[in-house]
Amino acid sequence: MLNRVTGWGAALSERVRLSEEQRLDWLRLIRTNNIGPRTFRDLVNHYGGARAALGALPALARRGGASAPARICSREDAETELRAARTRGIDFVALGEPDYPPRLQMIDDAPPLLAVRGKLAVLTRPLVAIVGSRNASAAGVKFAERLARDLGAAGFGTVSGLARGIDAAAHRASLATGTIAVLAGGHDRVSPAEHSDLLEAILAEGAAVSEMPLAWEPRARDFPRRNRLISGLSVGVVIVEAARRSGSLITARLAGEQGREVFAVPGSPLDARAKGTNGLLKQGATLVTEAADVIAVLEPILGRGFDLPAQEPTPDVPGPLDIEPGEDESARITSLLGPTPVSLDDLVRLSATSPAIVRTVLLELEIAGRLERHGGSLVSLL
Amino acid sequence: MLNRVTGWGAALSERVRLSEEQRLDWLRLIRTNNIGPRTFRDLVNHYGGARAALGALPALARRGGASAPARICSREDAETELRAARTRGIDFVALGEPDYPPRLQMIDDAPPLLAVRGKLAVLTRPLVAIVGSRNASAAGVKFAERLARDLGAAGFGTVSGLARGIDAAAHRASLATGTIAVLAGGHDRVSPAEHSDLLEAILAEGAAVSEMPLAWEPRARDFPRRNRLISGLSVGVVIVEAARRSGSLITARLAGEQGREVFAVPGSPLDARAKGTNGLLKQGATLVTEAADVIAVLEPILGRGFDLPAQEPTPDVPGPLDIEPGEDESARITSLLGPTPVSLDDLVRLSATSPAIVRTVLLELEIAGRLERHGGSLVSLL
Repeated sequence: MLNRVTGWGAALSERVRLSEEQRLDWLRLIRTNNIGPRTFRDLVNHYGGARAALGALPALARRGGASAPARICSREDAETELRAARTRGIDFVALGEPDYPPRLQMIDDAPPLLAVRGKLAVLTRPLVAIVGSRNASAAGVKFAERLARDLGAAGFGTVSGLARGIDAAAHRASLATGTIAVLAGGHDRVSPAEHSDLLEAILAEGAAVSEMPLAWEPRARDFPRRNRLISGLSVGVVIVEAARRSGSLITARLAGEQGREVFAVPGSPLDARAKGTNGLLKQGATLVTEAADVIAVLEPILGRGFDLPAQEPTPDVPGPLDIEPGEDESARITSLLGPTPVSLDDLVRLSATSPAIVRTVLLELEIAGRLERHGGSLVSLL
Repeated sequence: MLNRVTGWGAALSERVRLSEEQRLDWLRLIRTNNIGPRTFRDLVNHYGGARAALGALPALARRGGASAPARICSREDAETELRAARTRGIDFVALGEPDYPPRLQMIDDAPPLLAVRGKLAVLTRPLVAIVGSRNASAAGVKFAERLARDLGAAGFGTVSGLARGIDAAAHRASLATGTIAVLAGGHDRVSPAEHSDLLEAILAEGAAVSEMPLAWEPRARDFPRRNRLISGLSVGVVIVEAARRSGSLITARLAGEQGREVFAVPGSPLDARAKGTNGLLKQGATLVTEAADVIAVLEPILGRGFDLPAQEPTPDVPGPLDIEPGEDESARITSLLGPTPVSLDDLVRLSATSPAIVRTVLLELEIAGRLERHGGSLVSLL
């Protein structure tokens, strides 16, 4: 039990579990108006526990000049929330408990209680956040998938914000190895709604976490607040694509303030979606073109090795095919391709070759693992 | 005159012009088999001058165990070369002379004689090299143009290798402000031949330089040799696009060895043309997304300011048009665009809007200076 003598520091080092009564008190205190994680900590430290702090609140509010009596979260409301959470399979993990994410515990505004759905075990693994633009490019999505898959295979859990674009790609590519979706609202208000299926898939090996009441509808300002948890959970944060003044840059800034490693994926200066990441690189973020770049920085911090599975070698020379394009034609068609999808028709026209030649070159590239086919006969280079 | 007492160092500090006889001796010595710039320097230092070195060559070759007598370039051949050069308006500038490029003079294998066509004055200006892939992407070409134009406007001369792709783009965009083409072969063997018109245009305000005999056909190994001159002339080298194991990376390495600043333009990890530049950034090259990034590093080195002309502000909100696309449609269409050209048809299909809406959004982007139109109704974002 937390008391004045052992205090908050003891909560971190002793890793004891709260009693049910204590958990209820913690929930009442953090759900009380005007009490955020920092105030919660101050109160518990000052009064030696949440119960004592709750008792002191009316007098504190009066002395602070509150116009109305302090609206303390009632025992009934807290019980209702705990009960509702349990019926949905949600655990309230308290700061200092063994299941609480160890890195998150280190930030000064760590949530006292984290509502967790899914596998608790993923929270205590080494975690890397992968975040980026909602309106991501195809190349950005592809890269996020590759990075998440490779970091997952190397033994990292991934963390992201369940948003469209990069976030969703990162979650999807690491479903099997464990990924954490950090919600800006409550567990009953998943945003965006279209990702509720993705969220369910995440829960199989990963988790969804929230510090907000179950029914909390996320407002604009809840997203930056949530972002501190994304970086706080993680040893490092990788920003895949980010325009100027985007939410991902807030996450990067918070990561820096929390002493977490900041990684950024470079992009063309002509691509607005790379402005933010290129800016981060100028400010000293570590440049990432593959998972190994992230692992190389994090291994010494974590004090252990992470092995990337062997990569499929990309054959340099595709095998012979029925129609053999000349080297010139092959080079010309390949040079027209890039990460952005283009149509077969355009390739035929721009390369001034025949559709058969273009198809053969594309087939060669595909066999070589260098081509992605999209809908509508669009292709792009990997 | 160079003699044993004043030696090579004096040539650098005194900045005297060679007599015609001396220039002939220098040409004979550097055109003699097995004598490169370093040996030239050693010989002149040792014997106090080129004439004395020429006299000593037969004995040196004999003592060195040469199987045949030393094949010294004859006085007649050197006179013929000098005369042929003059009829083409080519000057032989000797190391130590006032017109010799001051930074090139500092490298230990600086050519004793530089054959210069065009404006000598450009050689002594602050120079920045811009190099990159031959099979450049449209975005790479665009960026090289913008960078060369802006650096030119700020007062820098540009340097490149007259190759297809990035090199040509850099030259073209700085024709008016001064650009230097460094040739791998002689002045009579411009490579690639299709750039002879570009070369003529370069000469108006810039120059073409070569250390090779006029009729020298460039071989593969002459290109890396030439690259040391590109970096050697320059205070800094910007690599715009480069695949792994490309010539541009050789230039970057040489620049580093010569103590020149190395800059690289970032690109998507999925773009093979960015592999080399991203690799350079990992090794510590300065990340460049605009001319100001280059100028910020070079100003302290050069000890003077370089002002970028005011940039046209890009309007955030295009004005109203006859057909007003909704914000959603506008965002959806814009997000489909990137540096790689896509067709109007694809945009209509992928955005699920009407051709009229797509055309209006493109028009807005164009007015905002954010769109480039290519042949065949292809467009890309700037």
